[in-house]
Amino acid sequence: MNTTRCLITQLEVQAFIEKCMVAVGTKPGHARSLAEVLVEGDRRGHYSHGLNRMDMYVKDVQSGICEKDGEPVIVKESAATALVNGQNLLGPVVGNFCMDLAIRKAREVGIGWVVANGSNHFGIAGFYSMQALKDNMIGMSFTNTSPLQMPTRAKECTLGTNPISVAAPANGGDSFVLDMATSAVALGKVELHHRRGEKIPEGWGCDSKGKLNTDPGKVLNGGGLVPIGGSEETGGYKGYGLAMMVEVFCGILAGAQYSKHVRTWKVTDRVANLGQCFVAINPANFAPDFNDRMSDLLTLHRDLEPAEAESPVLVAGDLERSSIERCATLGGISYHVNVVNHMNSVAEQFGVTPLLPNNVPVPE
Amino acid sequence: MNTTRCLITQLEVQAFIEKCMVAVGTKPGHARSLAEVLVEGDRRGHYSHGLNRMDMYVKDVQSGICEKDGEPVIVKESAATALVNGQNLLGPVVGNFCMDLAIRKAREVGIGWVVANGSNHFGIAGFYSMQALKDNMIGMSFTNTSPLQMPTRAKECTLGTNPISVAAPANGGDSFVLDMATSAVALGKVELHHRRGEKIPEGWGCDSKGKLNTDPGKVLNGGGLVPIGGSEETGGYKGYGLAMMVEVFCGILAGAQYSKHVRTWKVTDRVANLGQCFVAINPANFAPDFNDRMSDLLTLHRDLEPAEAESPVLVAGDLERSSIERCATLGGISYHVNVVNHMNSVAEQFGVTPLLPNNVPVPE
Repeated sequence: MNTTRCLITQLEVQAFIEKCMVAVGTKPGHARSLAEVLVEGDRRGHYSHGLNRMDMYVKDVQSGICEKDGEPVIVKESAATALVNGQNLLGPVVGNFCMDLAIRKAREVGIGWVVANGSNHFGIAGFYSMQALKDNMIGMSFTNTSPLQMPTRAKECTLGTNPISVAAPANGGDSFVLDMATSAVALGKVELHHRRGEKIPEGWGCDSKGKLNTDPGKVLNGGGLVPIGGSEETGGYKGYGLAMMVEVFCGILAGAQYSKHVRTWKVTDRVANLGQCFVAINPANFAPDFNDRMSDLLTLHRDLEPAEAESPVLVAGDLERSSIERCATLGGISYHVNVVNHMNSVAEQFGVTPLLPNNVPVPE
Repeated sequence: MNTTRCLITQLEVQAFIEKCMVAVGTKPGHARSLAEVLVEGDRRGHYSHGLNRMDMYVKDVQSGICEKDGEPVIVKESAATALVNGQNLLGPVVGNFCMDLAIRKAREVGIGWVVANGSNHFGIAGFYSMQALKDNMIGMSFTNTSPLQMPTRAKECTLGTNPISVAAPANGGDSFVLDMATSAVALGKVELHHRRGEKIPEGWGCDSKGKLNTDPGKVLNGGGLVPIGGSEETGGYKGYGLAMMVEVFCGILAGAQYSKHVRTWKVTDRVANLGQCFVAINPANFAPDFNDRMSDLLTLHRDLEPAEAESPVLVAGDLERSSIERCATLGGISYHVNVVNHMNSVAEQFGVTPLLPNNVPVPE
C-alpha cells in the first residue's frame, strides 16, 4: 500500500476547486468550467494539468492579471469561421465558448474553425477536442504557450510546448484522442527527473548551448525542451515545424502574442494574451460509415501482435482511458499527499473547507 | 566538377515527362499536371518525388491500373466542405481539382476542407498546400500511402509515411512551407544508406521484431520505418499518433482504402484508392495583418544565433528555397546520370526524344 498517495472523489475535487476560485471573486460558472478541465486532466492521468495547477489560476484571478467576469466576444464571423476575443478570461471559459461555436458551425456547414486571442492557459488541450465527440464529430484544439522549446540548430527557446489535440469518434463511445506537446516531452517530466536526481534520456532536452544533454538541471537552467524527433539527424526539425504550425494557427492567425513575445513561463508581469485554435469537422459531410472505419482502424491496431508480449499496442487515448477506469475502480482520483496539503494551505487563506482524503488505501 | 551529374533545364524535363505520359495515352492536360508536380519536386531537391518516379506513373497508366482520362467528381458539398471521387485519375489531377475547390470555398466562407477518395500518388504534398499561397491563404494537404511505418510497440507496418504539409504566406512572397512525412525519415533515405553500405542513425527504422536497428537491410526486409520521435521513450508514440491523424483525415474521412488495407508499396495488383485531404484557410477571416506577423515569426527565427556558426537556424521551406535558387543559378536541374539514362530508356520504347543533358558542368 502507498502512504504517499490518497484518494479523493471527483465530486469533492470539483467542488473544492470551484470554491477556491469563487473565493477570489471568479464568476461561479467560470469557476465550474475551470474545475471541470482540471479534474478531467487528473482523471486522465495528466496530473501536471490538474489540481496541481490550481494555485496558478487562483493567483492569476487574485492578482487581476486574468479577468474574473465577462464573456468572450465574437469579433468576426462567417458560416464556417470565427475570430473570438477571449477578453482575458480563464482559458477554459474561452475554450468552451470557441469549441461550442465551432461545433455549431460544423453542424451547419460541415466545419467550424475558430481562433481566439486574449486567452489564458486552458488546461489539457484534449478537453476541447473531445467536446466534438458528443456530436459525433472530429475535434481539434491547439494553443501556444510560453517559450520552452528550442528550434533545431538554435540555443534559445522561442516556441512553447504548443500542443496538438485531435479527437475522432468510433462506434460505441470508443474514440481516438491524440493530445500531445510538439516538444519531445512536457517540462514536468524533466522536472520530475531533476527532483529525483535522475538523468533524462537523450533527445528530451538541450543545454544553454543548444546541445542535447541528459542532465535535467542543464535543461531547466538556460536550456530548453527539444522538438519531437530530437536532434536534426533524427528529424527534430519536423517537431520544430509542427510547433511553428501550431503558432501559425494560434498566435499568428488570432493576432495574439506569439513565439518569444509570449510572456515567460510562470512570470505573470503582464496579461498572457495567448492564441488558441478550435476546430470541429462533421463526418456526415463526407463519406458514409465514418464510425465503422474508425472502429476498424482502432481495433486493427489494438489487435496487432506486440513486439514485447507485456506491452500491448495502443492507440492515442488508450492510456488515458485506463486511467479513468482506474479512478472508477478506486472510487476516486489518487493524489500525492503533498499536492493535497499544498492546495489545502491555499484554500485555508479563503476559509474554504480543505480536501478530506478518504481512508481507502491506494494500491501502488 | 561532378561527372555523375548533369544539368537539364526545367522546360526540357517538363516537356519530356509530358510526352512520355501522353505516349501511353494520358490526356494531355493530365500529363502536364503530373509533369509540373514532378519537376517541382526535383527543383525543391526532393528527387525521390520527381523525374525519378516517372516510370512508376507511366507504368500505372500503361497497365490501366490508373485512369488516363476523365475528371474528378464532387460527390457531396457544402459551402465549406466537399467529398470528391478522384475517379482513379493521376494523383496530381485529383490534387489540383480538390485544392482549387478548397481555395474557392475559403474565398467565400474563410475555409475549404476537401477530401478525396479514388486517388493515386500525388507527388510532393507541398505542391498542393503551396497553391493557397497564391491567394494569400494557408494551405494544407495530407495523403495516406502504402504501409511502411510501424506503430509504437508493434512489429508490423500498418501506416504509410502519411505526410503533412502546411504552407502559410508572409510578406514579399516569403512563406513557411512544412512538408514532412510522419515517419522519422522517408524510405528513400534508408535505401540510399543501404546502397552505400552505410549504417543508418538509431531512430530511423525497426527490424522485423519491432526493435530499433541501424542496419538498413533489416529495415527494408521485413522491418519498417519508425514514427517521428523514434522509440517510445523519446516520444515515438507522438509520430504514430500523427500518422494516424493523417489516416483519419484521408482514408477514414474519404471512405478510401486505409491503414494496412492500402495496397503494398510498388505492388500494383489493384487500384490504389488512396484517400487525400486538402484545406485552404483565409487569413482575411481572422485578425488583420497576418502577413506581417508571419514575416516577423520567420525573421525572428532566421536571425537566431545558431548553436554552430556554420549551421544557420532555418524555417520550414528554407532548404527547398535554396535548392530552387541553385537551379536558377545553374540554369537547370542537376540530375544523376543514371536517372536520366534510365528514363531515356523508358522514353525510347515510345519514340519520345531523349533528355539531352546540356554541357554545363555541375559543381559538386
